Amino acid sequence: MIYKAETELTIPFYDNDPMGVVWHGNYVKYIEIARCDMLNKIGYNYIDMKNDGVAYPIAKLDMKYIKPISFNQKIRIVSEIEEIEPSLIIKYVFFDENEDKIFKAKTMQICVDIDTKNSVYNAPKRFKELLNA
Amino acid sequence: MIYKAETELTIPFYDNDPMGVVWHGNYVKYIEIARCDMLNKIGYNYIDMKNDGVAYPIAKLDMKYIKPISFNQKIRIVSEIEEIEPSLIIKYVFFDENEDKIFKAKTMQICVDIDTKNSVYNAPKRFKELLNA
Amino acid sequence: MIYKAETELTIPFYDNDPMGVVWHGNYVKYIEIARCDMLNKIGYNYIDMKNDGVAYPIAKLDMKYIKPISFNQKIRIVSEIEEIEPSLIIKYVFFDENEDKIFKAKTMQICVDIDTKNSVYNAPKRFKELLNA
Amino acid sequence: MIYKAETELTIPFYDNDPMGVVWHGNYVKYIEIARCDMLNKIGYNYIDMKNDGVAYPIAKLDMKYIKPISFNQKIRIVSEIEEIEPSLIIKYVFFDENEDKIFKAKTMQICVDIDTKNSVYNAPKRFKELLNA
Repeated sequence: MIYKAETELTIPFYDNDPMGVVWHGNYVKYIEIARCDMLNKIGYNYIDMKNDGVAYPIAKLDMKYIKPISFNQKIRIVSEIEEIEPSLIIKYVFFDENEDKIFKAKTMQICVDIDTKNSVYNAPKRFKELLNA
Repeated sequence: MIYKAETELTIPFYDNDPMGVVWHGNYVKYIEIARCDMLNKIGYNYIDMKNDGVAYPIAKLDMKYIKPISFNQKIRIVSEIEEIEPSLIIKYVFFDENEDKIFKAKTMQICVDIDTKNSVYNAPKRFKELLNA
Repeated sequence: MIYKAETELTIPFYDNDPMGVVWHGNYVKYIEIARCDMLNKIGYNYIDMKNDGVAYPIAKLDMKYIKPISFNQKIRIVSEIEEIEPSLIIKYVFFDENEDKIFKAKTMQICVDIDTKNSVYNAPKRFKELLNA
Repeated sequence: MIYKAETELTIPFYDNDPMGVVWHGNYVKYIEIARCDMLNKIGYNYIDMKNDGVAYPIAKLDMKYIKPISFNQKIRIVSEIEEIEPSLIIKYVFFDENEDKIFKAKTMQICVDIDTKNSVYNAPKRFKELLNA
């Protein structure tokens, strides 16, 4: 484990489906909120990446739904960077108010040079420095 | 009325809320699908606008919800361009399978020069030619 | 003005469009976050409404876009209840970090009896008591 | 392979992100459109499931992004049911206009009794009959 962060959020009404629970596709948004929050905490977010001439598109996303959640619930997301080279691998675990595990996910992101569109197998220097700090 | 088009679509599951009907915010997507379909029919879509150096951001959007709709229903949207100068004004009326009026909306879009960010009060020449044809 | 509340939120990446700004339809989500936050502060949210046998579907929504916003910006939303009977009318004004007004909206919601589907022109007793407190 | 269906769709503007390509979370919607289209073709959709007293929540979703897509592109989705018992497993492959493979996904859905919330390991009789027809 290279870096770990926690993010809390409240489930909005519009994310719920006719079964009265969060529609499964909306978890991808919560994963991104958690990832962006972690990157802000590290001090190297999407805007910093862009300034370094790279982007980190998602190459793989695996999700496992354990227990449904619904409107107005408060969830806690624990995000952990597992690897940053050759690709960025992050794991996410979601917990409800009772500390029950409700969801797990894993993303793999490839570092891409914005100009050449080529994959870059070394993470940006600044990103590594901040993670080692 | 300058131009009129019709668009049909089927309501997807994920657009429905815990009341079992389409969440009111999702109608903005249907309006955009109808508008883009109309622009494709005219032969002057967002990509053509961009090639002409302009964009058409939404400045105003008014919506009136008459009758709820839900998953798997087929709706028909009638879009009408009311004005293209100084701003683009389009009206939309949605009908269900029984030809009941279920929703009405109106958008106002301002033509903006992508480089200068200034408003442009004359519609692009090509857009006007196609509408007059 | 019957009740006023303030809500702050940070713009997520996924709400931005190819122009690099928030897609206009996503403001409906921010309006709902602000409204639900206000109702939580009043102590009478969608769940309380349901327990009282009523729902408050949106009948009208008017939006005016003044200045674009984008990823990672922090916005402040001021929501004001203007009327609760015969329908619930709420106004919203959005401000950016510089206190510039970026967006305005108004919703009209009709109180509906969940069982009979009939409109109810008197707001639930508990809702009124909390607003008068 | 138990059943195979094909679905075509056009990428809407609002699904694209500031990189000018479809935001990765929106693929979950396309998967659901393809799955619902397949179920309609089989003649056993979410509404039929509900009438049979069951629901099919998503338990696992794995996605692999191969090539980006963007606004106004037409994609073709091939969906294949791999298993219906003890859980419903469906594979999806997306192709662009050049028949390039752009995306792959797999869903696992658990059949759940709506009343008892218990898992059901036998698929509904009507669903199996239609698949065997």
